[in-house]
Amino acid sequence: MESIEAVFSTHPQRPPDLSLIEACAAACSKCGSLCITCSDACLGEPHVADLVCCVRTCLDCSDVCLATARIVARLTRPSPMLVEAQLMACAEACRVCAEECEEHAAMHEYCRVCAEACRSCEQACRALLHGASLA
Amino acid sequence: MESIEAVFSTHPQRPPDLSLIEACAAACSKCGSLCITCSDACLGEPHVADLVCCVRTCLDCSDVCLATARIVARLTRPSPMLVEAQLMACAEACRVCAEECEEHAAMHEYCRVCAEACRSCEQACRALLHGASLA
Amino acid sequence: MESIEAVFSTHPQRPPDLSLIEACAAACSKCGSLCITCSDACLGEPHVADLVCCVRTCLDCSDVCLATARIVARLTRPSPMLVEAQLMACAEACRVCAEECEEHAAMHEYCRVCAEACRSCEQACRALLHGASLA
Amino acid sequence: MESIEAVFSTHPQRPPDLSLIEACAAACSKCGSLCITCSDACLGEPHVADLVCCVRTCLDCSDVCLATARIVARLTRPSPMLVEAQLMACAEACRVCAEECEEHAAMHEYCRVCAEACRSCEQACRALLHGASLA
Repeated sequence: MESIEAVFSTHPQRPPDLSLIEACAAACSKCGSLCITCSDACLGEPHVADLVCCVRTCLDCSDVCLATARIVARLTRPSPMLVEAQLMACAEACRVCAEECEEHAAMHEYCRVCAEACRSCEQACRALLHGASLA
Repeated sequence: MESIEAVFSTHPQRPPDLSLIEACAAACSKCGSLCITCSDACLGEPHVADLVCCVRTCLDCSDVCLATARIVARLTRPSPMLVEAQLMACAEACRVCAEECEEHAAMHEYCRVCAEACRSCEQACRALLHGASLA
Repeated sequence: MESIEAVFSTHPQRPPDLSLIEACAAACSKCGSLCITCSDACLGEPHVADLVCCVRTCLDCSDVCLATARIVARLTRPSPMLVEAQLMACAEACRVCAEECEEHAAMHEYCRVCAEACRSCEQACRALLHGASLA
Repeated sequence: MESIEAVFSTHPQRPPDLSLIEACAAACSKCGSLCITCSDACLGEPHVADLVCCVRTCLDCSDVCLATARIVARLTRPSPMLVEAQLMACAEACRVCAEECEEHAAMHEYCRVCAEACRSCEQACRALLHGASLA
């Protein structure tokens, strides 16, 4: 199976416990993709002018998440302060984007799903932050 | 469930058949992530000097795949010639990276897995290219 | 001076002639940034609903250009077929985006500027493609 | 002239004073590009095994800077808390990467230049953070 877990588990510099890293990398990658599609779905609505703030927030959140996914996907010689700063920014971006999307969740199913992905990603970033600070 | 399929399936501009788009978006996103971790695993080897070409090729392939994933994740008003040109570049990047990683597959399990992901992504891009040209 | 030229010129793997590479890297980076701001300027217009195609095309073009900028910024052990495939995709993305932005150039100064940056980037990619194939 | 300033200055949602935003967008974009080339220059050295930490830090810093550049390049409907969180992460990434590159500055001119770009970008992010909090 060509999974990211199979690559992490054979990485020469893998830490003893990979579970928080794997969960965070997967959540950032998924949330980053969903935010792009959510911004694009808003753009495809006839009333796009009412959704400009949601488009913008989703675009920003996707950029933050996808950069964080790249960083968390690396296990060799991390700089803890750099990684932690980016995880904090990502948790905050996800929190802000979740709040924005939740405002439209009743009307747009894709916003409801995107908000959930943002909440999951926020939690995965915070879990890795706390796990990392214990290491 | 907070899946990309749930967002695509409620997108106001979704095409009748989403299967090739979903498969391509997922493959590009996964291959882009795996190539980052593969380049990083090479960087973590004591004999990294022998793996410089693999690091470089994986970094390039991840950049191409992750840009393609962003583009394929959008359904509203695509420019077919732009999307097709990027899909062709992505298929080629994956082909080249698969060949490079296959050279190290016997020694590095992560290169074997990365090569498989590249082959899958190449196929998903070509399937969407051919499917799209029939649409 | 903290310029990219100063980094390229002291790179251990620099080729004899850097001029086409430097020009292409700079053009891709600039065009990628401008396309983001152009898409965002469209999003800030009261009549954004009329500009949805321009937003989409600019977002795609920025993704292609910024990935290409990353690849062209590397000089160590390039895979010529991978680099050339991405340069072709980038030239095409810029051509498509220039045509889209030119339709709004009379009304929106930012679209006029963006279209010019796209044309310059298309040329820089093509120049590097032809220069590279002679090397 | 096809400059980012020309796009910012005709943007429908531009704030009264663009100087800190322009400086930050330019610094993030430049630093992100330089960090990629610096990591690649390290990769091209015969003694790459001694430079693995520098490669990693530069790759992370480029990802943070290039995501921040995308976010700062947008003027329409920003979420201040999201933007500020990312600016803080970017300032920190640049500080960490500058310290790493400064260790090799005497030996590698490209690391010296990269460290300077990181310091400039750190300052530009902090200036925008402080300017923004006064607005």
